[in-house]
Amino acid sequence: MSASAPIKVGVLGAEGKVGRAICEAVSAAADLELVAEVDRGDDLETFVSTGTEVVVDFTHPDVVMDNLRFLVEHGIHAVVGTTGFDDERLARVRSWLDAHPAVGVLIAPNFAIGAVLSMRFAAAAARFFDSVEVIELHHPNKADAPSGTAYRTAELVAAARAEAGCAPSPDATSTELDGARGADVDGVRVHSVRLAGLVAHQEVLLGTQGETLTIRHDSIDRSSFAPGVLLGVREIADRPGLTVGLDPFLDL
Amino acid sequence: MSASAPIKVGVLGAEGKVGRAICEAVSAAADLELVAEVDRGDDLETFVSTGTEVVVDFTHPDVVMDNLRFLVEHGIHAVVGTTGFDDERLARVRSWLDAHPAVGVLIAPNFAIGAVLSMRFAAAAARFFDSVEVIELHHPNKADAPSGTAYRTAELVAAARAEAGCAPSPDATSTELDGARGADVDGVRVHSVRLAGLVAHQEVLLGTQGETLTIRHDSIDRSSFAPGVLLGVREIADRPGLTVGLDPFLDL
Amino acid sequence: MSASAPIKVGVLGAEGKVGRAICEAVSAAADLELVAEVDRGDDLETFVSTGTEVVVDFTHPDVVMDNLRFLVEHGIHAVVGTTGFDDERLARVRSWLDAHPAVGVLIAPNFAIGAVLSMRFAAAAARFFDSVEVIELHHPNKADAPSGTAYRTAELVAAARAEAGCAPSPDATSTELDGARGADVDGVRVHSVRLAGLVAHQEVLLGTQGETLTIRHDSIDRSSFAPGVLLGVREIADRPGLTVGLDPFLDL
Amino acid sequence: MSASAPIKVGVLGAEGKVGRAICEAVSAAADLELVAEVDRGDDLETFVSTGTEVVVDFTHPDVVMDNLRFLVEHGIHAVVGTTGFDDERLARVRSWLDAHPAVGVLIAPNFAIGAVLSMRFAAAAARFFDSVEVIELHHPNKADAPSGTAYRTAELVAAARAEAGCAPSPDATSTELDGARGADVDGVRVHSVRLAGLVAHQEVLLGTQGETLTIRHDSIDRSSFAPGVLLGVREIADRPGLTVGLDPFLDL
Repeated sequence: MSASAPIKVGVLGAEGKVGRAICEAVSAAADLELVAEVDRGDDLETFVSTGTEVVVDFTHPDVVMDNLRFLVEHGIHAVVGTTGFDDERLARVRSWLDAHPAVGVLIAPNFAIGAVLSMRFAAAAARFFDSVEVIELHHPNKADAPSGTAYRTAELVAAARAEAGCAPSPDATSTELDGARGADVDGVRVHSVRLAGLVAHQEVLLGTQGETLTIRHDSIDRSSFAPGVLLGVREIADRPGLTVGLDPFLDL
Repeated sequence: MSASAPIKVGVLGAEGKVGRAICEAVSAAADLELVAEVDRGDDLETFVSTGTEVVVDFTHPDVVMDNLRFLVEHGIHAVVGTTGFDDERLARVRSWLDAHPAVGVLIAPNFAIGAVLSMRFAAAAARFFDSVEVIELHHPNKADAPSGTAYRTAELVAAARAEAGCAPSPDATSTELDGARGADVDGVRVHSVRLAGLVAHQEVLLGTQGETLTIRHDSIDRSSFAPGVLLGVREIADRPGLTVGLDPFLDL
Repeated sequence: MSASAPIKVGVLGAEGKVGRAICEAVSAAADLELVAEVDRGDDLETFVSTGTEVVVDFTHPDVVMDNLRFLVEHGIHAVVGTTGFDDERLARVRSWLDAHPAVGVLIAPNFAIGAVLSMRFAAAAARFFDSVEVIELHHPNKADAPSGTAYRTAELVAAARAEAGCAPSPDATSTELDGARGADVDGVRVHSVRLAGLVAHQEVLLGTQGETLTIRHDSIDRSSFAPGVLLGVREIADRPGLTVGLDPFLDL
Repeated sequence: MSASAPIKVGVLGAEGKVGRAICEAVSAAADLELVAEVDRGDDLETFVSTGTEVVVDFTHPDVVMDNLRFLVEHGIHAVVGTTGFDDERLARVRSWLDAHPAVGVLIAPNFAIGAVLSMRFAAAAARFFDSVEVIELHHPNKADAPSGTAYRTAELVAAARAEAGCAPSPDATSTELDGARGADVDGVRVHSVRLAGLVAHQEVLLGTQGETLTIRHDSIDRSSFAPGVLLGVREIADRPGLTVGLDPFLDL
């Protein structure tokens, strides 16, 4: 896409399943160069010696803070999919970045661009419709119902409707077989389907007089985080400081 | 479709909303002729004097038995969408037909061909899949959840699976927000969506390793009973005796 | 939504099918008051004498310019669904508004909020995916294929992808039965389904590695313009000058 | 499902990708026992010495006829997914079976139960609807459009409609951008979508006044043939002679 030199990328957690997929995706991208693959026991100095510009971290909550401190202090940008960040941890990362204002760190719980866009679009559209419901559909080995993404989507939709002063979704149900109308998340009904042959899918249904809008996300492959990670890698140098969530990188 | 004379059709309940739609549909069909429109206060003898061959009855449980007795005794076939038939009523109709074995009576709770086919296909497919769930989606003024059709579909699916000795649909849910997994109808999960902008819709989802089959029915117009009624009118003369439900007429 | 006095609304073309639907929708809204219904032969002065604040115009290209000139000169806001506006006409409306800078005029070809949002979301998402295609599905009486909305959607998607420097959607098709891959609109494939039982539907499918995002709009009723028109009526006083298209009112 | 001894199963082509998946599926089934894995260079006598009852053959057109001759002559049932069977080959298999009437051979081009059911249901439903169209959606590396399954589905639908004397699907299109209305297969329109993030999907849409029926099949994993193969293995002993296509085993 540009004639400039490829971005030098390192991967932390390179031997994990996710890490390997990211190494492959980076290698396959013409504008990126994979210069360092690091995992447990390897020396972080490798990133310095190879001139790494951006590190992708899919490791473990136990080690990610040490990783980030090293990277920030060495002026290396980071794109982080490791979980376990609470307010206290985010505050510490911010304090490190204060001392290195040119460095960018992106920490995101979900790199599937389709999932992130789904939530954004659902929240943006919610106030224009009388009714909103969420259906999420997953493989039958999933332990929680609804999914975290569906729960979060319903919260965002409910908040957008509350802010706009929307009335509750109309519902004349007077006879209900227990559970038929789904779970109630802040007034938004959420339905969880568990079916062999599915992976991870979600539909947000919005309806008003005579028309409906449906926003559906289908993820059939764990690799669906890759395009979002690469987007982060390509943009992080232009977005110094801490960014939480992929949304701001989507410029919607 | 044939060079033979059009079938002479009468409509009982001709001034009701459904009756009027049926009158229009009969009038529009080249192989049918609308010869009698009868409603409350009119004389049933009209059917005899006009040579009516088939009468469509969408009236009321209070009068339908008298109507049927008259029709059967006068050798006129009947296609009946009026509700309220229990075993005792069906037995009485059968006894009238015993004395008039050439006459056919079709009594069906649902003339929407798509709905009838959906149920049949779902039941036929159910034993080949590990998982089955039902989602029904209706306008928000509906009082019951799930819909009668969804309930019946789940019952048929469950019976087909029981007969084939299928294991229960797998489900590892251990943490559930109340209602998320829907209602349980004989072991089949049923989810009811209520949304402005919808009319009457249903999806049966069947899944096994690596693949899913979805059977979806959308009804956006009360007129969707018309093609099923006309099918009944065209075939009833060849199907003497009592038929309950449109299924046998579909020759699946 | 507010304790202020209802907005006084007039309807031009009040006896047309659309006009009557709008009169009903205005009457049903607690924050709006229907004060004038005007059609061919009626005097526009009615709007002045009734203190009309906003006029909705669904009339005819032959008369809409005279209507607008009158409304602007009398300080009355206008929400216009009448067609036939070209650059020359829009320039004339702007010149009238220059002399009455407090007046707002909204001219929109499509008031179905779901359709407008679909297009916006599709265009916003297009650059994050490798592939985009459009399927539109309509009743079989439609004369043109693809629909104007699908054509416009494809143009917007293609423009967004061009601006972001996206590669063409990958396609290894080497053996094609004529027409199978749909129509090509600026590099975006568009498929037109014509089916009895449908009204007006559209799906934009976006795909990248392991995930897809689908934005679907279903319109089953001609009344689906009403919520968009009411949105325009409620907001036009705060948006002086000329606005073309409903999009800016959605604040996305 | 039964207390009887497990069926002894052998796999021919056991080292291919499909063969390995079948070995895994057989091993995982409680009512089946994997007793022989054979590939190029191995001796077919292994099946005899291990007492194999049913052999699954996913090999190559060059060797499958020799395999089948051996199996039939040794009284071993066969379930065959290898391609390349024409009328001449099928006639030869039949002649071998004439001499061994207790042996069953199932040769099927498609073992995905969902795909087979989709085609059957579409063909069964086709005559009750005014309109039928097919949309197939695949990954963008596919060379042919439409898919073989979509082509075959359209042929079956068209044949069913011709036999029932159905009129052509209505279509008032008078202005068409080239290709918009899809490919024409015996009067049935077929649309081919190619999208990153998809695997293999198909929708048959059937519509009549006020209602539509949609039969959708999603295959997201090459392993979707496994349940169909196991069904064949379990039933073949009860179905002596040659069966072409999985359909008869589904008892619809």
